[in-house]
Amino acid sequence: MLVGIGLMPHGNPVLEPPDDETRKLAEVLRDIGKAFASVDSYVLVSPHNVRMSDHLGVVMAENLISWLGFEGKELPGEWKTDRELAEKICRAEKDAGIPIVDLNFASRSGQYSRWPLSWGELIPLQFLEKKLLVLMTPSRGIDREPLVRSGEILGRVLEGSEKRVALVISADHGHAHDENGPYGYRKESEEYDRLIMKLINENRLEELPEIPEELVNKALVDSYWQMLMMLGAMKVGEFELRESAYACPTYFGMAGALWVRR
Amino acid sequence: MLVGIGLMPHGNPVLEPPDDETRKLAEVLRDIGKAFASVDSYVLVSPHNVRMSDHLGVVMAENLISWLGFEGKELPGEWKTDRELAEKICRAEKDAGIPIVDLNFASRSGQYSRWPLSWGELIPLQFLEKKLLVLMTPSRGIDREPLVRSGEILGRVLEGSEKRVALVISADHGHAHDENGPYGYRKESEEYDRLIMKLINENRLEELPEIPEELVNKALVDSYWQMLMMLGAMKVGEFELRESAYACPTYFGMAGALWVRR
Repeated sequence: MLVGIGLMPHGNPVLEPPDDETRKLAEVLRDIGKAFASVDSYVLVSPHNVRMSDHLGVVMAENLISWLGFEGKELPGEWKTDRELAEKICRAEKDAGIPIVDLNFASRSGQYSRWPLSWGELIPLQFLEKKLLVLMTPSRGIDREPLVRSGEILGRVLEGSEKRVALVISADHGHAHDENGPYGYRKESEEYDRLIMKLINENRLEELPEIPEELVNKALVDSYWQMLMMLGAMKVGEFELRESAYACPTYFGMAGALWVRR
Repeated sequence: MLVGIGLMPHGNPVLEPPDDETRKLAEVLRDIGKAFASVDSYVLVSPHNVRMSDHLGVVMAENLISWLGFEGKELPGEWKTDRELAEKICRAEKDAGIPIVDLNFASRSGQYSRWPLSWGELIPLQFLEKKLLVLMTPSRGIDREPLVRSGEILGRVLEGSEKRVALVISADHGHAHDENGPYGYRKESEEYDRLIMKLINENRLEELPEIPEELVNKALVDSYWQMLMMLGAMKVGEFELRESAYACPTYFGMAGALWVRR
């Protein structure tokens, strides 16, 4: 059963919040961790692991190992893959014609079956109790409709599982909030982030697919494609927003949101 | 232009040869390195990097970083991807309908665009001068004909490039040569390895696709699929076997062979 969904940022500032807004965001992230403390496994969708232009990915490697921090923030740790669930998801997506690949590394099983983690996974994982993981990757080159559909198929697999599973979407939003930041200032980053928080807080996420392509592109976001997958997964049941928060302490926008089953 | 092809093993024993046969094999590997000293880039096909059940892979990540040694043999180092060539190869394979994905990690470019290397790449690379690399991965779930065809398309891209490129196939052969080894003893490992060396030395590699599936499976090999790709690449010109060697100092068979353009 899909017991809940967490939208979680992956920016270093949530680890040591520099201001009140970010502290409030970090609190939501800790609450997500508490709400998911009783699940068996997480499905974690991250935009900073493998990036394929036109395929989703499901990691089958048995051992998931910290490899790459951002700006020197190393977060060591190892997790285990829920291989059984990963295989079910991959099979269901493939059967439905979703472009997806299973990903292993070095060996097909055992100690040499390993997969590297980056800040995109490691930062959300800091707020979550250690559980089995299924790591999935979104893709920017897949159309909106199949992305939503892939999420719906994922949701159905989780719903049909005897395990209690939480879906975690790793996402940062506009990256051009600061004229001194690496991407400068663009009004579209503000506009996109405001719209996303509106859709979350007003329970209007079904409008996600209507966001203009131009806004998504100009806002330089890291969230849109995996949020479409999230939207699809939400179709399998009734979810209630328990809390949300937004902060933008540097150049990129971060959002946290927790949905639980009604 | 595709100037030469090297078949190279990835077993630790070639680094510190325990016997005369393995010493002879290591000599062939050093000769491959010398023969390719003047190339611009290598295309390296490895079975111990990403493993996808039904897609080939081309790594686009800019930085290729040592990550995983076998049995504690760590071989640190970093290489750079020949991104331009990698993109050409991926485009040509996709256009021809070959199931293939482009692989990046974390970021699309820059210092955070990184990819992990295992012993499957690191051991051949010990014998090769540092050059730009295109890292490709084979797949056991793709049929023989499209594997050969993917090699032919690869060969044509290399042939059409203004760069001098060498193709390196990382491969070990039967893994059940020793009754005390991890896979025990199977006569098929001996049979497969003998056959492969015959096909290499008698210039009969075009018979590769006829090797019975059952023999490939029972011999527990790590070489067949990428050798089919090699066979395809060989179709783009005339290649002459300059030298070859075989050794089996532990439980798996290792072969080295160097082909240069006639």
